[in-house]
Amino acid sequence: MKFNCVDSIAKQFKAIQDNICTILQREDGQGEFKKTPWKKPIGSGLTRVLKKGEILEKAAVNFSKVKGEMAQSMCKFLGIQAEHYEATGISSIIHPSNPHVPIIHMNVRYFTFSNGTDWFGGGIDLTPHYIDKQEATDFHLKLKSICDNYNPGFYDEFKTWADNYFYLPHRNETRGIGGIFFDKLQPSNTMSRETLANFCYDLAEAYPRIYSDIMRNKSNREFNGAEKAWQRLRRGRYVEFNLLYDRGTRFGLESGGNIESILVSLPSEANWEYEFQPKAGSLESETMSLLKKGINWVGI
Amino acid sequence: MKFNCVDSIAKQFKAIQDNICTILQREDGQGEFKKTPWKKPIGSGLTRVLKKGEILEKAAVNFSKVKGEMAQSMCKFLGIQAEHYEATGISSIIHPSNPHVPIIHMNVRYFTFSNGTDWFGGGIDLTPHYIDKQEATDFHLKLKSICDNYNPGFYDEFKTWADNYFYLPHRNETRGIGGIFFDKLQPSNTMSRETLANFCYDLAEAYPRIYSDIMRNKSNREFNGAEKAWQRLRRGRYVEFNLLYDRGTRFGLESGGNIESILVSLPSEANWEYEFQPKAGSLESETMSLLKKGINWVGI
Repeated sequence: MKFNCVDSIAKQFKAIQDNICTILQREDGQGEFKKTPWKKPIGSGLTRVLKKGEILEKAAVNFSKVKGEMAQSMCKFLGIQAEHYEATGISSIIHPSNPHVPIIHMNVRYFTFSNGTDWFGGGIDLTPHYIDKQEATDFHLKLKSICDNYNPGFYDEFKTWADNYFYLPHRNETRGIGGIFFDKLQPSNTMSRETLANFCYDLAEAYPRIYSDIMRNKSNREFNGAEKAWQRLRRGRYVEFNLLYDRGTRFGLESGGNIESILVSLPSEANWEYEFQPKAGSLESETMSLLKKGINWVGI
Repeated sequence: MKFNCVDSIAKQFKAIQDNICTILQREDGQGEFKKTPWKKPIGSGLTRVLKKGEILEKAAVNFSKVKGEMAQSMCKFLGIQAEHYEATGISSIIHPSNPHVPIIHMNVRYFTFSNGTDWFGGGIDLTPHYIDKQEATDFHLKLKSICDNYNPGFYDEFKTWADNYFYLPHRNETRGIGGIFFDKLQPSNTMSRETLANFCYDLAEAYPRIYSDIMRNKSNREFNGAEKAWQRLRRGRYVEFNLLYDRGTRFGLESGGNIESILVSLPSEANWEYEFQPKAGSLESETMSLLKKGINWVGI
């Protein structure tokens, strides 16, 4: 019976995917989200990618619905003992052209297992190339407001989770200003499956609106070559995180997902420079100083 | 007693590092291998990086000597039970400007453990952006000739090992045309510690000569924007390999090595393009068709 939930949630996710693309495309004004449906032994999906828009350099909004046997490595990876799983999700990442516009990422997902367990996961997080404190506060307040509609404890818990998850230990820096992240949220007496699903829908629906506001605020800012170069270096860090640590990427690659859809999260252009240090007192240096866990953005 | 071997091998590695830089720098004719010594709790090293040379866009030749306790995760990673390890190595990677010049990588390393085990590892492999069959054959023949001086079985064994190691399972393609790779080579009655050390020295000494020949052959070739763009996409694959699979990178990051020295292997500029397909019959497409395991380059 629970296995039917996947179909119903997947249907809703697919409708939301379409809506996200419509809103982002309208705001960009030039680019178009092309559709690439895919089908593999593991399942199917619809990858939507906008390349070289007016504001969005590369934006992806992916839907997938997959299932499979749980190999021992998969049981270990997911931390659960079961014979089969079924899962559906939307995953989106946007790399803008203008370095003053931040990178954003959103994911909502639903897993159900043959042992009867099911859970929700997801989150939204922002990775500015240049951290703007007001923007960071606004962003976190919007996420808090969605969380507060469901549980007064959600925001604090999921904000801390994001700080810990979107973190590059080898650099001792966070990926960006975080946001919220949650995983393995199970239906309970106090929060039904339907309520948790609605929480995920609300997040995914808020996502393009939150980003549209940012696009409107920032995409007309002028930038120079040095700022563009800094953006490419920050994108290098984004690549490091996604390939070294991101569990979604690992899960996708290990479970036999669609490679081009998984790695569409990588930016068009990323640079690395040996021992690059931003100048003391520069905006780049200020951004570095704010790539820390535990900053209370809503209380600033 | 064996722990003293580390000092002696490290001394030799350091001298070879210097020699590699001298030869490559002379061949480049413009760039300079700057020295950055580093010291961390785990040990010390000397990182030498040449940036923006005439031929070499980014070249690194790193020496390090480290030691530490073997946490359970490290025992598992290295596949050995011991309380302490000591290790020394040279690791080098070169990203040239001209897409007709291949990327090259060389590593030699010596590990010794408190349980009495010690082993050598290393290899050289080539990653052309455009595969040139003659160049590939010459390269493999040179490696075979060094191997044959030590053991008639080495080349075949280590060539296959390189095919399997420098492989991106998610892309089902090899990183380049391979070369040789070996690990955990232990001294025995038939091959002493000194002989194995000499094998590593020979490889590391041959390395800059092999690459100088390639530089001389290829660095004057003209190239256009499309070829440069292809190079950046191939570098993207190089980044994928290094961050997703390379054991040296993982070991360095997990053991607390020097981050900038480990990640100097990443190219200055790498690009990704969603669903890029080279045109049928193009040189790019031919290169893709040769990124396969099991090609007998010396027999072609």
